[in-house]
Amino acid sequence: MADQSVIWSTYAFEGKLINVRIDTVELPNGNRREREIVEHPGAVAVVPVLDDGRIALVRQYRPAVGRGMLELPAGTVEPGENATSTAQRELEEETGLRAGSMARLVQFFTSPGWCNEELVLFVATNISHGQRSPEDDEDIDVELVARGDIPRLFREGMVADAKTMVGLSIYLGLSLSPEQGGE
Amino acid sequence: MADQSVIWSTYAFEGKLINVRIDTVELPNGNRREREIVEHPGAVAVVPVLDDGRIALVRQYRPAVGRGMLELPAGTVEPGENATSTAQRELEEETGLRAGSMARLVQFFTSPGWCNEELVLFVATNISHGQRSPEDDEDIDVELVARGDIPRLFREGMVADAKTMVGLSIYLGLSLSPEQGGE
Repeated sequence: MADQSVIWSTYAFEGKLINVRIDTVELPNGNRREREIVEHPGAVAVVPVLDDGRIALVRQYRPAVGRGMLELPAGTVEPGENATSTAQRELEEETGLRAGSMARLVQFFTSPGWCNEELVLFVATNISHGQRSPEDDEDIDVELVARGDIPRLFREGMVADAKTMVGLSIYLGLSLSPEQGGE
Repeated sequence: MADQSVIWSTYAFEGKLINVRIDTVELPNGNRREREIVEHPGAVAVVPVLDDGRIALVRQYRPAVGRGMLELPAGTVEPGENATSTAQRELEEETGLRAGSMARLVQFFTSPGWCNEELVLFVATNISHGQRSPEDDEDIDVELVARGDIPRLFREGMVADAKTMVGLSIYLGLSLSPEQGGE
């Protein structure tokens, strides 16, 4: 396992959220390859645990994938903001819930083969009611879900994204079995 | 939760792996927004379980994030290929292991807020030795890891990406606690 030498880099796209950088790299065998790399500012997600044990999830339509799903409250880190502040802000904006305690659970790269997005996961407890203020392009429903219902939401595909699977499965110690009848 | 009307779409970048599409959408309140959406062909990852219970992981340097990590064997779905075939091919290319049984575990979107990449996770069993054939831009070491060592690899950050966290935690029923001392 070794680093590879980047010969040069150019930007093929510079957007409001992401950039696409093209790295030309020289491999140990002397060959050159172009790599498409997406630069993303990073994100946070929150497992909000209510005092009665239920977990607050948000249901929203996702244009990028053409469907709705149940997700952990989450958002993009803004310039100058630290991950804990982003988590507090996004939780309250999306759900109207305010966390008395925000503890880091784990962090991960969403797709490190081609993208630098890193996501920090928090567990929020000591929850009280604050002020919802979704952005005008967000159409979000909050659902309070009992822990016992979560394995079914995985199996039925309503939980369908990486951050929500990582957060819920690691926090709850969830285990699923592979489908029977695989080849 | 409602769909949003796409007024028009243009491509800002068309690459070998990904495209960037700009969707102009009209919101329910009449405002318009531009959305940057990355189109990705989709990927698979495999939890390869050896007969003695150890799990085969691959260690590789990831230029997009500037570090190495331990990951499940994985790869991009090629045109005309189904997910199970991709899983068989990538497992053997990267590790030299051949799966007698390949069962679907779960699937998820890596980052549905801005990207359509979907990843299908498999559990491979009845493993025998095949033929390693890494691509010439891959520099991959195979490590056989005991299940009991995996929580430590999570805590130490050697397991650091979404597919590997989802696959190992759901397959093993792994549970982690939030850090103490959170605000």
